Amino acid sequence: MSIASASNTTAPTQFLETNGLRYAYRRFGKGSGPPLLLLQHFTGTLDNWDPAVTDPLATSREVILFDNAGIGRSTGDVPSTMAEMAKHVTAFLDGLKIAVCDVLGFSLGGVLAQQLAQDRPAIIRRMILVGTAPRGGEDIMHLEKPSLAKPLQDPQNKGYAVLQKIFFAPTPTSQAAGAAFIARLMQRKDDREPPSGPKVAGAQLAAFREWEHFTGERFADLKGIHHPTLVVQGFEDEMIPVRNSYWLAENLPNAVLLVYPDAAHGSLFQCADSFTRQATAFLSSDSESAVF
Amino acid sequence: MSIASASNTTAPTQFLETNGLRYAYRRFGKGSGPPLLLLQHFTGTLDNWDPAVTDPLATSREVILFDNAGIGRSTGDVPSTMAEMAKHVTAFLDGLKIAVCDVLGFSLGGVLAQQLAQDRPAIIRRMILVGTAPRGGEDIMHLEKPSLAKPLQDPQNKGYAVLQKIFFAPTPTSQAAGAAFIARLMQRKDDREPPSGPKVAGAQLAAFREWEHFTGERFADLKGIHHPTLVVQGFEDEMIPVRNSYWLAENLPNAVLLVYPDAAHGSLFQCADSFTRQATAFLSSDSESAVF
Repeated sequence: MSIASASNTTAPTQFLETNGLRYAYRRFGKGSGPPLLLLQHFTGTLDNWDPAVTDPLATSREVILFDNAGIGRSTGDVPSTMAEMAKHVTAFLDGLKIAVCDVLGFSLGGVLAQQLAQDRPAIIRRMILVGTAPRGGEDIMHLEKPSLAKPLQDPQNKGYAVLQKIFFAPTPTSQAAGAAFIARLMQRKDDREPPSGPKVAGAQLAAFREWEHFTGERFADLKGIHHPTLVVQGFEDEMIPVRNSYWLAENLPNAVLLVYPDAAHGSLFQCADSFTRQATAFLSSDSESAVF
Repeated sequence: MSIASASNTTAPTQFLETNGLRYAYRRFGKGSGPPLLLLQHFTGTLDNWDPAVTDPLATSREVILFDNAGIGRSTGDVPSTMAEMAKHVTAFLDGLKIAVCDVLGFSLGGVLAQQLAQDRPAIIRRMILVGTAPRGGEDIMHLEKPSLAKPLQDPQNKGYAVLQKIFFAPTPTSQAAGAAFIARLMQRKDDREPPSGPKVAGAQLAAFREWEHFTGERFADLKGIHHPTLVVQGFEDEMIPVRNSYWLAENLPNAVLLVYPDAAHGSLFQCADSFTRQATAFLSSDSESAVF
């Protein structure tokens, strides 16, 4: 497989000293619009961003990958609430002097994108939320349920192999897409991030548990997020089931919903060609409407 | 507004004598792929197809609009079941000697597309289902419910004006899109179809009531429809609420779901630019997968 000139397979890891911390990030690609900030999933590092997603996006814009506090080579502790994690995102963007960006948030990263849209609405132009859930959503990352506990506890599933099982549907087509995804993640040979350990997982799971709680009218927070938004999901997602994306897109006032068949949590990786084409079309629009 | 050279504003109405009946239709546009058959909504005729939808589609394929039995200048009686209506579709396609086509079914037309996919699977290549429901769906075209009865019974809403109210959301943006839609429908001056009367409405509503019933496992029929399918809907649809599209796309094994914000039953007309671009991309694919 050829490697794009601006690629997560080859882009050097950089470090930003700000907020009393050092944040690891990668920044590549170019374009005239605002940069696209990518916010990562549960326990994922810079090395968990599939070049089949990042590289096509980077052909027409700057892409910024970010390790939140306590992830990879970023210093500090992983907070146990989404609100605290989102503060690190704003500190990072402020440190880079980025006044406006687009955001692609996947899973936990999609939660942070929503939090950021509420806390600092002016810093976001357009937003893509993949495989994620609103506050008050249901069945969010319950790794103890049998459909997830079984592959997670299987000693055969070491390292990235577990991602193939839990990010992809149990069909031959989806599992083959999962194997290709893992192979792409392994293309990067040097300057890799250390993988996350149990401490990261524990704090992030605590944050997910807190995110399931809501007070007052359910999903009311979403009504105040007016950014053009593209919500993306796979019908077979066991980690954050698709009804969470229905709630997101129904209650956000300005969101298009796109759901892929035979795809699970990693729909954006499995359907990378389609996803990057749709995402590029969405991000290329300057309309006030999310419709693209 | 300019009129495309292949347009529902100017295409002559043609008549096919077959099956002991005379079917009214229009056929325009060209391309190397199979023709695209458009199946119309409740009480709609050839003149209810928005040129903003038909004409961009016709730039890269043949588009065929069809008045089912008892609609417009087609002879015969409107059947009171979807299965009987679908038989007229196959008789029409057989009469035109069309062995394979793509199908865009809107609302009632989307139901007929599903029926056709079950009865004559080989005649369909790819399928677009807009604002429709599976057998066993809920709240399908209950015109007696207050949100629909009020605009339908308002004497101010004469002719097409009622469509602006019930096909579009009660927001300024959606209502403005509705007014533009009505203006486009009125661009065609000559060779128009007679509008449907109460007899058509009664038979088609009986067919919708029958379609709400199911026996055996709910939505099981959908599992056998393997055609690549694009399911499209507006979140604000009161005529056939969006959860019906969720059920459709969740249970069809090979369907992408696309839902538009601030749009109701007429999402394809309101979002015509986006819809025709997405539909063209979907129809241009030869993949076995619906993902495009």
